[in-house]
Amino acid sequence: MRPFSSTISLEEARRRLASAVKPIQRTDHVTIDRAVGRVAAAEIVSPIDVPPFARSAMDGYALVSADTASASKNTPARLRLVDRVFTAEMSSTIVSAGSCVEIATGAPIPDGADAVVMVEETGRVDNAIEIYAAARPGQHIGRRAADIAKADVVIRRGDVLTPSRVGALAAIGCTEALVFAQPRIALVSTGNEVVEPGTALPPGHIYDVNRFTLSAIVTVHGGVAETHQPAADSLDALLRAIDECAAADLIVFSGGSSVGERDLLVDAIAQRGTMIFHGIAVRPGKPTAFAMIGDTPFFGMPGNPTSCLSNAYILLVPYLRAMARLPVHAPRTIDARLGKRIASAVGRHQFYTVTLQDGVAYPAFKGSGDITSLSQADGYIEIPADQNVVEEGERVVVTLF
Amino acid sequence: MRPFSSTISLEEARRRLASAVKPIQRTDHVTIDRAVGRVAAAEIVSPIDVPPFARSAMDGYALVSADTASASKNTPARLRLVDRVFTAEMSSTIVSAGSCVEIATGAPIPDGADAVVMVEETGRVDNAIEIYAAARPGQHIGRRAADIAKADVVIRRGDVLTPSRVGALAAIGCTEALVFAQPRIALVSTGNEVVEPGTALPPGHIYDVNRFTLSAIVTVHGGVAETHQPAADSLDALLRAIDECAAADLIVFSGGSSVGERDLLVDAIAQRGTMIFHGIAVRPGKPTAFAMIGDTPFFGMPGNPTSCLSNAYILLVPYLRAMARLPVHAPRTIDARLGKRIASAVGRHQFYTVTLQDGVAYPAFKGSGDITSLSQADGYIEIPADQNVVEEGERVVVTLF
Repeated sequence: MRPFSSTISLEEARRRLASAVKPIQRTDHVTIDRAVGRVAAAEIVSPIDVPPFARSAMDGYALVSADTASASKNTPARLRLVDRVFTAEMSSTIVSAGSCVEIATGAPIPDGADAVVMVEETGRVDNAIEIYAAARPGQHIGRRAADIAKADVVIRRGDVLTPSRVGALAAIGCTEALVFAQPRIALVSTGNEVVEPGTALPPGHIYDVNRFTLSAIVTVHGGVAETHQPAADSLDALLRAIDECAAADLIVFSGGSSVGERDLLVDAIAQRGTMIFHGIAVRPGKPTAFAMIGDTPFFGMPGNPTSCLSNAYILLVPYLRAMARLPVHAPRTIDARLGKRIASAVGRHQFYTVTLQDGVAYPAFKGSGDITSLSQADGYIEIPADQNVVEEGERVVVTLF
Repeated sequence: MRPFSSTISLEEARRRLASAVKPIQRTDHVTIDRAVGRVAAAEIVSPIDVPPFARSAMDGYALVSADTASASKNTPARLRLVDRVFTAEMSSTIVSAGSCVEIATGAPIPDGADAVVMVEETGRVDNAIEIYAAARPGQHIGRRAADIAKADVVIRRGDVLTPSRVGALAAIGCTEALVFAQPRIALVSTGNEVVEPGTALPPGHIYDVNRFTLSAIVTVHGGVAETHQPAADSLDALLRAIDECAAADLIVFSGGSSVGERDLLVDAIAQRGTMIFHGIAVRPGKPTAFAMIGDTPFFGMPGNPTSCLSNAYILLVPYLRAMARLPVHAPRTIDARLGKRIASAVGRHQFYTVTLQDGVAYPAFKGSGDITSLSQADGYIEIPADQNVVEEGERVVVTLF
């Protein structure tokens, strides 16, 4: 058996990961109704003016503003109604002094008119319209190209396509966008004892958890999970599993990175690539490894489900989002008081799960192997490596899941 | 033309929406690899113990703890190595006083042993193992059912299936979960002038934006967008469009809820259901309406893209999430200083979009009809109905998109 020779600090692990990450270059075309959350891979400029015509911002009357210069409730301007223009219609009437055109919100402004007075400031007397207030030139007119001018940059390369940006694409008539591909993340659980849920559980075996927690995390943070069958604890099986992940943008194994005699992942990596680190001074999750297999980054996550998922939140998510060109994820935090003293290992940065009840955080951590340490918790607190206890009643910051 | 007779406050609109919302009852079965983010519709209890056997938490030696009572580096306990047990194996050896079994992390504890000493606290001398530290009973043993006991509640009805809860389902061998259905949201843009992106734009027409922004929002917040062709501005077309949405859980129209002569949506609703409110003292988005069409809730959103999307964030998202049984969405906020004075209409609660540069928020709002008011903004500030100006340099809270 080979004990860990050394561990690196969490900060050093983060530094090495940040310097290794390469944002994805591959691109996809997506239709705009499936584009939300994707990242634009090219600038998009508008082929048209939006709106493509000057339009009324109100229901009312299009007119020549000079006609209304002295208009008031007592001395209304009286104009001849010469046409009505609704949306989707172009009026062929030219508005001249003394006349007006009834107009609907969104309808094109007829030639000659330079203002709209809203219906609330008008009255109707026979076939004439009385205007009760002076209109300034341009009033209630949305000018052509006010929103977007032809050749304007609507989307920049790297923009996340939020709902409003999807809307901007629709506004310019665009049906499809070039976006960066979502990184393909190959997920492999290792261990002779690991079997797929849904199959019988032989003595001494457990169900695979990590592939499902990792797949869920990858999906939420912009990747595409590519799942594989569990790999047995033999060098051959591990090498074969690594080779089967060749098409992935990122490979994530779980298990096999502890120090047992059969933990052969270190040997497998030595044969296929270069270890960047193995062993981090965190708890849970000390055996986490990171390597390069050729140009493909490789995470070796701990086999214990809580260690695996905890380090996936802390290390894998930032890496994946950077690959996917998504902004840094800032989970919500809540200030709370600790409901019960927690002792922590000195020298290891600890992530300790808690439940929240009425603003008090109670310890929820059971063991690294227990998925309920996480599934029954609301979030976690961090205890720095140089601190070994957090007292009951102390203020803590809870990061929510 | 019919001016608005009155508007209600934002708070009153929120109250009426909150009292109208009915969480969805329909359920779906989903496999656990597609379950993340869904909401459990039934309690799930474990059919098994997890782990199903006592297992070692370390690589080391399983032994009888009493044998090590006086062990130390200088006076090691010397034990006979009688077997090795790896993961996925059940040892048939019974560990008795004076003997030990080499054991891997995760392997079943052999009968007779009551503790594990980790390899780092041992040495090997010929075929004997020297133990350098006393072990307490139970040390480094993960007891059977420590994580989940048979019949334990693993998931409660209403739990959102986070990655760790998906993992808990995998741990008990469950491959599928009963979840609440995602609400089906029918989206219809109205207006003669509205055409689909990707088609030619006749004079006086504009591309549909709202269906795409609304569809994006619905997708992000747990609904399934069901899209329809734009409906023309005629009572018949609107009634037909409403009737075509009969299978939806929620209907969202945009446009046609302003006060123009052709804004016939109010008449259509009168024929098919009951208006709950029409007109809110907010800016943008005053013409927003809410009605019940039989048992189906109906949002009438403004036609202006920014008004529509802004009120979708503020009113539709909370409603949709409550229907979908998802927790309240709390967008991130940032404190900033306002970079330029903003004047606001008294009597209307204003949502004013801003961009952020070095901690300073600059106005980004152009017009209610301009989707770039949102797509080029980072977030918005709120200006209460009783305030009409925010001065340059004032502290503001920016809600990020």
